[in-house]
Amino acid sequence: MTDLADVAALDATAQAELVRSGQVTAAELVEGAVARAEKVNGEINAIIHPRYQEAIAEAHEPLPEGPFTGVPFVLKDLDGTAAGQPLHCGTKFLKDHGYIAPHDSELTTRFRNAGLVFIGRTNTPELGLVTTTEPEAYGPSRNPWDLGRSTGGSSGGSAAAVAAGIVPMGHAGDGGGSIRIPASECGLVGLKPTRGRSTLGPDLGEAWGGLVARLAVTRSVRDTAALLDAVAGPGVGDPYWAPPPARPYVDELTADPGSLRIGWTATSFDGGVEVDPQVAAATEATANLLEQLGHRVEQASPSAFADGSATAHFLTAYTAWVALELDHLSELVGAPLTEDGFEAGTWAIAEAGRLVSATQYLAAIDGLHAITRRAVAWWEVDGFDLLLTPTLPELPPTLGQFRSTKEEPLTGLFRSVSPSAFNAPFNITGQPGISVPLHVSEEGLPMGMQLVAAPAREDVLIRIAAQLEQAHPWADRRPPVWTGA
Amino acid sequence: MTDLADVAALDATAQAELVRSGQVTAAELVEGAVARAEKVNGEINAIIHPRYQEAIAEAHEPLPEGPFTGVPFVLKDLDGTAAGQPLHCGTKFLKDHGYIAPHDSELTTRFRNAGLVFIGRTNTPELGLVTTTEPEAYGPSRNPWDLGRSTGGSSGGSAAAVAAGIVPMGHAGDGGGSIRIPASECGLVGLKPTRGRSTLGPDLGEAWGGLVARLAVTRSVRDTAALLDAVAGPGVGDPYWAPPPARPYVDELTADPGSLRIGWTATSFDGGVEVDPQVAAATEATANLLEQLGHRVEQASPSAFADGSATAHFLTAYTAWVALELDHLSELVGAPLTEDGFEAGTWAIAEAGRLVSATQYLAAIDGLHAITRRAVAWWEVDGFDLLLTPTLPELPPTLGQFRSTKEEPLTGLFRSVSPSAFNAPFNITGQPGISVPLHVSEEGLPMGMQLVAAPAREDVLIRIAAQLEQAHPWADRRPPVWTGA
Repeated sequence: MTDLADVAALDATAQAELVRSGQVTAAELVEGAVARAEKVNGEINAIIHPRYQEAIAEAHEPLPEGPFTGVPFVLKDLDGTAAGQPLHCGTKFLKDHGYIAPHDSELTTRFRNAGLVFIGRTNTPELGLVTTTEPEAYGPSRNPWDLGRSTGGSSGGSAAAVAAGIVPMGHAGDGGGSIRIPASECGLVGLKPTRGRSTLGPDLGEAWGGLVARLAVTRSVRDTAALLDAVAGPGVGDPYWAPPPARPYVDELTADPGSLRIGWTATSFDGGVEVDPQVAAATEATANLLEQLGHRVEQASPSAFADGSATAHFLTAYTAWVALELDHLSELVGAPLTEDGFEAGTWAIAEAGRLVSATQYLAAIDGLHAITRRAVAWWEVDGFDLLLTPTLPELPPTLGQFRSTKEEPLTGLFRSVSPSAFNAPFNITGQPGISVPLHVSEEGLPMGMQLVAAPAREDVLIRIAAQLEQAHPWADRRPPVWTGA
Repeated sequence: MTDLADVAALDATAQAELVRSGQVTAAELVEGAVARAEKVNGEINAIIHPRYQEAIAEAHEPLPEGPFTGVPFVLKDLDGTAAGQPLHCGTKFLKDHGYIAPHDSELTTRFRNAGLVFIGRTNTPELGLVTTTEPEAYGPSRNPWDLGRSTGGSSGGSAAAVAAGIVPMGHAGDGGGSIRIPASECGLVGLKPTRGRSTLGPDLGEAWGGLVARLAVTRSVRDTAALLDAVAGPGVGDPYWAPPPARPYVDELTADPGSLRIGWTATSFDGGVEVDPQVAAATEATANLLEQLGHRVEQASPSAFADGSATAHFLTAYTAWVALELDHLSELVGAPLTEDGFEAGTWAIAEAGRLVSATQYLAAIDGLHAITRRAVAWWEVDGFDLLLTPTLPELPPTLGQFRSTKEEPLTGLFRSVSPSAFNAPFNITGQPGISVPLHVSEEGLPMGMQLVAAPAREDVLIRIAAQLEQAHPWADRRPPVWTGA
């Protein structure tokens, strides 16, 4: 048996290998994760629905044989729907009703079939609407790199749990940066897959008009690749599908990316967001690193988002999605909506959404589709392989900045514009994007770099991210709040 | 040179071969098609915007090298957008404004690049909203098999042109049966591809929330396969994509389909539509033929459409799509909408659509997605390879039944329920479906049979349709109105 004190530092692939080779048992791995959670979760508030004893009991029973058999994992309490587990989506409404999900999502089932053991459910902003994880229902998650700062959102609970070493990876979903932003703020790898790559079944065909993609935050690129291999692919009756990869994503880890044409920018697409000088410098340093690695790098980016119309169309649709989501929650619990069941910002956005007509909504979607054509042409016509941007234009924000009130209900929404400025555009286009934890600020805060590939080209992202990970490794970095030895 | 009088009987593949082998010139082919159009178009009103002299002039110049170089073709005047050509979509509104399209659709460009020569634009119901081609703006198309009967809709003009032998195939699009219904009523092959198989760019990312797919009506299965090979595949910036086929579709023409598990029904899915006894008998005969060909055939069909909720959700969304479409037309011409620019039915549907909220629309789409999961499970979980149904439950309707008035504006919509009953469900699910012209009624009217495969499995449809074409050929059948020798 290996020294369990070291396990916290291992990625999921390495932890699975310990089980596969008989050096530790699944039960020992899960018990270790639970011990680590009990040590630090009070500080970071990452896991809000622990299921420690259930997880340990499950790990003592035979588990599905998969790439991650016995590896502890967390599910996000927004869309990581699991049979018999709470599903509160950051809302007081579902919390007060004590809502329990009746069945797994297809993705949850695939996580199970990969051999993962769920030790708990992680914190999320209410309905995932803002880019920080500070729901009134469950309180703020705190960043292991600085407890006074945000973990990002909406997958901030999962990111905090992984960053602190509780689990090697955690479920996450991304409708406007919600995988990439927490990955960046917590020093992790976060891949948002291509539209249609991971199923949202059985409960939904698509979410947010196709902008939402789900996967995980991880500590290593290889974990992201192996997990994508394990869970990607259409569910029965998905409304559309991403073209399948030519070969497993793990094969890309050691594939030579060749000399790619990479455009980069550290200026927000519509010029409306200020970029922190440290972030800008880190982006330029990444561009230089890519050049040293043999890529053809130039300052360039798509112009499709320059006029701000993407934001206007997005906001029209977003309000309607929120209104629909509230209606869904009411149906789930079989009770009418109550204003005090929701944060002021959520309620106000939904009220605005109820005033949107179907034709206004459809015109907004058509507008987003038109922008998508112009944006994707930068890759497929102009011939760029990758876009490099900062994941966020700023350092992880201090806590408390996103709180909405009845008097100023849109504070959280407006404050989310900056963190999502570089990544939400690719929810609109459906392209894959990855945040890679390449840099640390003077204050010791993580600064992720985003790489965006052409539609369905996660293979290119895995290749380049693995190359960067090797050239500029981050595995040995530890946040101040760290569960391991 | 071959005898041009026989050319009308040849499919597009054979006509292209004549050009390729030097037996005829492209100009001769096109001149022949124009001569045939001039002979019969007055009777059938298939082509409403002839461009005969332009087409002949184009055919005298070098044409793109493709699988159909020099073959005459027609574009549907609904979405077959072509630079410098009228685009009236069956509306008085665009007709009165004399609207001319400024650019090609991507699909039109691909038709051009395949070597096809456009001899004219074909008639369509107003905005493709009903299943007969009898727009007030351009008058009814008439069925070459019986001039008193409908050609189906919305691709009825193209279908009439092909059925009468003017051109060997014509562009068509299908949002609720609009390829398959005209194919059935005019004795042609009509494949509605999988969602995302053919691009709708650059003007749209999707149409009707993803229900619309575009391709053609043809006389032979091999033409459908070769045309799909030529024009399928995503456009730059499509919002989603059908998984590509493993090999060219023409390779399926001679591939052994093996012994497929085929369910069939001649009863409408929700029991709400009466099936003509001749149609029911033809369906059973087709089932028997499939059994003789070695398939495992049983009476079975998906239950997902049984409760009628698909129709309710569809209608909610449909009214909103129509309202949006009218807004688009107003933008195209830069003039306000006028009630007298549209048929009474169109105006009433749009007025209803303006009352639909975004949340009602989104709930309807979610409802359709849920039905899609249950429907597709019949193929992917229950294990059926194909569903066989009649394409229409009835014979081609006599003209004049679909006309809406201010007093009864929804006559056309309600009358379209029966023709679309078997095929519109697969616009909802996004699955590929093909109508094959296997049968003729006692009155000498065509009765198409629909085969529906699992999502993205056009390969299976091409294989089975080719097998049926060989076992029960239709190439020698001629309608009373026929342009050839």
